[in-house]
Order: sequence, then C-alpha cells, then structure tokens
Amino acid sequence: MISNIDLQEVHERISSYIHRTPIMTSQYLNGISGAEIYFKCENFQRMGAFKMRGAANAVLNLSEEKRQKGVVTHSSGNFAQALSLAAKSAGVPAYIVMPSSAPEVKKEAVRGYGGEVTECPPTLEEREKAAQKIIDKTGATFIHPSNDLDVIYGQGTAALELMQDQPELDFVITPVGGGGLIAGTALAVHHASENCKTIGAEPFAVDDAYRSLQSGKIEMNETANSVADGLKTMLGDKNFPIILKYVSEIIRVKEPEIIAAMKLIWERMKIVVEPSSAVALAAVLREKEKFKGKKLGIIISGGNVDLQKLPF
Amino acid sequence: MISNIDLQEVHERISSYIHRTPIMTSQYLNGISGAEIYFKCENFQRMGAFKMRGAANAVLNLSEEKRQKGVVTHSSGNFAQALSLAAKSAGVPAYIVMPSSAPEVKKEAVRGYGGEVTECPPTLEEREKAAQKIIDKTGATFIHPSNDLDVIYGQGTAALELMQDQPELDFVITPVGGGGLIAGTALAVHHASENCKTIGAEPFAVDDAYRSLQSGKIEMNETANSVADGLKTMLGDKNFPIILKYVSEIIRVKEPEIIAAMKLIWERMKIVVEPSSAVALAAVLREKEKFKGKKLGIIISGGNVDLQKLPF
Repeated sequence: MISNIDLQEVHERISSYIHRTPIMTSQYLNGISGAEIYFKCENFQRMGAFKMRGAANAVLNLSEEKRQKGVVTHSSGNFAQALSLAAKSAGVPAYIVMPSSAPEVKKEAVRGYGGEVTECPPTLEEREKAAQKIIDKTGATFIHPSNDLDVIYGQGTAALELMQDQPELDFVITPVGGGGLIAGTALAVHHASENCKTIGAEPFAVDDAYRSLQSGKIEMNETANSVADGLKTMLGDKNFPIILKYVSEIIRVKEPEIIAAMKLIWERMKIVVEPSSAVALAAVLREKEKFKGKKLGIIISGGNVDLQKLPF
Repeated sequence: MISNIDLQEVHERISSYIHRTPIMTSQYLNGISGAEIYFKCENFQRMGAFKMRGAANAVLNLSEEKRQKGVVTHSSGNFAQALSLAAKSAGVPAYIVMPSSAPEVKKEAVRGYGGEVTECPPTLEEREKAAQKIIDKTGATFIHPSNDLDVIYGQGTAALELMQDQPELDFVITPVGGGGLIAGTALAVHHASENCKTIGAEPFAVDDAYRSLQSGKIEMNETANSVADGLKTMLGDKNFPIILKYVSEIIRVKEPEIIAAMKLIWERMKIVVEPSSAVALAAVLREKEKFKGKKLGIIISGGNVDLQKLPF
C-alpha cells in the first residue's frame, strides 16, 4: 500500500500551502566534486524548512470534524513552527508542547505562526503526558514530526518536484534525522525513476540510521554530539520499513566535514542553510569517486540557524 | 547622448557572460515595511556581485586590437574579481593592481579568476603609478570600477531586468558607493518607466553622495567608518552628472540600521548578502511612511562577505 501512494495527489493537495522551491547549481561545487549537483532549496520553503510540506499534508488530510478539534505535537524544532503555520493556513487550531528549556525565540516563533504553546518539563515522558492531556481535553489529533505516513508523503513532494525538473538524476541525497524526509524522498525517487537511487547522509556522531540499516532494526543514538542538531532524533516504525526497502546506502561524515560543507554552501552559493543541510554535500565530497560524473540531487533541508551561534 | 543609450543592446551584448538573477520577495519584510518589495538578487550573479555586468560590458566593447592587449584596473574589491572573470571569459588578459596590504584571500580570488596581480604600496598615487606602468608596457586599456560609461551601462542591466519582470514599480532603490550602480540603475529606470523613481541609500558615516547631490559638486568622505565597506568610494565625473539628473533622492541610514537590515535579510530570506546590500532595505525601514503601499525594487548588490567577520 505504501509503495502505491500517489505522491502527485499529495502534491496537488498541499500545493497552495507551500512554495515550489527553486533548484540551484554551483559551477564551483560541481568543479570540486566532479559531479553535477542540483540543490533543491527547501531553505526557501515557507517557515524555512521542508517540514512545511509534511505538516500541510497531515493537516489537510484530516476530516472536517477532526480539523475543528485541532492538531497537537511535541517538538522544539522546525516541525513545531511548520505545524502551527500549516494549521493556521487551514484554519485549524494547533497545540504545541515544548520543553520549558526551549529557547524563548523558538516559543515566540511558534506563537507568531499561531500555535498555542504548552510548556512542560524537558523529558520525553513529560512531553507525552502533556500532549495526552491536550488530546483528552480538546480531542485534537496527534501528528508526529517524522513517524507519520501523511507527514512522510508530504516530505516526499520536495523530491517529486526535483525529479519533475531533473528527471535524469542518478542519486538523490538527503540528511537523515527522524526519517521522515528520507523515507518520503525514497518513495518519490522510486516512483519517478528506474535507475535513480536514494542515499542518506548522517553524522558519525549520531549514526543511528546507518546502524539501523546494518542491523535491520531501529537503533538509538548514545550521544547527541553533532553540530547538525536536526539529525539527533531516531527513526520510527512507520518510516523505517520504507527506508529499509528503498534507501540504498547511508554515508557517514565527520563534524569538520559538515562545517566545511556548510561554509562552502554559504560562501559559494550565497544561501543560508542549516548544518543538517550541509551533511549531504559533505557526504558527496567525502566519497568523490562514487559520484564522479554523476547527476545528483541534494535536498537542502532548511535554513533556520541562529546567526549568533555559527559553527565557523 | 547618455540618455539615449540603448541598454537593451548592452544587455544583449553581455547576456551570455552573466546570469539573469532571480527576483525574490518576503511576506515578512513586506509586512514590517508596509511596502511590496522586489529584491533583485545580484548576490547570485557570477562572482557574487553586480560588478560582473559592468566589467563584461567594458571588456566586450573593446576593439579586437584592444582586446588582445588586455585590460587593467586597480581595485581590492569585487571589481578586481569581476574584471578578471569577464576578461577570462572573453579571452582577454587582465592586469589587476592591488595594494600589498590587501588580504591574501582576495589576491587568490583574483588569480583564481585568471587575473594577473601586481602588488603596490597602499596609496592611490602608487596604485595609479603601477597601473600606468602596466599600460606603458602592455598597451592594456584602463577600466575604472565605477567611473566609466561602459561600466555604468553594464550595471544598469540589473535594473533593466528588474523592470522587465516588474514594470509597475514606484521606486528602485540601490546602495551608493562609487556611483556606477546607481547611475546605471537611474538610466534604466528613466527609460523603462514614466513614473518610477530611483533612490539611493547611503550610510551617514560615508554620505559623500548625499552631500554631492545637495551641493551640486562631487564631495569627498572625511571618514570611512562604515560596516558597508563597498560604499566608501567617491563619485566620479562620468557618473555624477547622471546621478544629478536622474536620482530623485538619497536616504542616509545609521550603522545599527544597516546591521539590523542585513540580519533580517539573512534570517528571513535565507540569503547571504554584503552589508552594502542591506543599506537599501535599511532606508526603506527608516522611512516607512514614504514607501507605504508602494511597489519597490531593491538591488541586492552582492554577497561576498567574510563569514569570520560578521557584524552581528
């Protein structure tokens, strides 16, 4: 059933809620990589990240009755903002559980997009308890940031657009965090092309997905010591089977490689991208021989960074 | 004669040497300004700045005989790189005089684009002497970074493209440095529209153009104490008459306003722009009443910044 999902239909559903983001190229980066790279710039997506796609699809797929009761999630990252904005755009209430330790600026961003913030102590147990309390009270529907099929399908529309514009790609490479983006991408690539392969890119420091692909079961991270703070989350039972089936490989990269790739993108492409977004380019530059002379798509996942805390 | 220049012809001449840069918008920046702003993104131009346009036009307008002898300029900024790349693209030798005090990374960038760097002591007199020596030896043609009609016409093609895509603009706003960009822009706007006005934006700290427009003669800066390091240069006898005739006003802004506008562009539009580029947005945010409900074009002049030395 999953492999028969019509991503084109998903794309049509969310198209007025998202931007069709541009695809950029850099002669310089093509030169140093030896590959022909097409960057799908989700940093230019609404609220600054691909998460808007999955959030929009999840909200729009609710029945009228469920829409009226609202949506709830727990997140301190991009998904909190994405769900708030998607819900607001569709006239749906959004309840966002955030750890009290989250930066005030992030809470403000969620409120700015119309989300109602509920603070809780910073443990997973407390988060889930707080979300359940909201569900009991409002009847709102819980939407997981990455382990939800509607979210996964929505995220896949970035690669769908990329393959529409560049149908001859040999590889599409995305960062791997909670697994929503790469699972959706892998489905889109599988449907769009016989030959194109989906590859994941992950920091060595949080290589749970790499190890999960090796062992065949969902592994956890023991540390969270990476500059790519969007990639510290683990896979889930909805996205892992898709990843296992359709992702050909996960390439791991070192922290200095991520920072160097991020700096290259900022300096040469003149765009602001998150560290997580640079992980895919870092993988290409680490394994040049594999990609030499190939046509690559890279999903630039987002551009929400704290300019006061840049890693270079 | 100047006002009869056919910028369309200039544009056709240089079109295979430059990118047609995208125009970006931001709902957020429209919201806080109350205006409808179209950003012409010359930070995505080849070598990262609008200077590529003027350099290309100057090089391509040379006779075959002059092309063989090459071009020479003195610059430590974007024009040194632009002239090198334009000349290389046209198969013309480029001799660049740079002060020995210029950062090694800038000399390397010029060499990377094929320019032959000649170092000299860091005074205007020594620069001119070094350039003259090269001219005497090679017969190369001197191209001034901003006070040269072919350069001015080339710079005007950014606004030409902008007005082609957005013919209904009320104002086009550019930063003012040496005067090449604003003079070319003013010519393009004058030819494209009856009603659209060209406005300059300049730091209070280096407000030579503001004072020149007041006094009717070219004024100099007494200090160079601005974060917008591209705007410290003075106007010249070729561009000043055009500015005097076709620029309706120059708005001055304070240093914190420039830095705040730059941060807004980076954070909200996810693009890397130079401090000089932010001066135009700073002017709009400083004089909101003037621009309320109007359609504005802003020329984002470039994106070449030192990521290690950001002002925020």
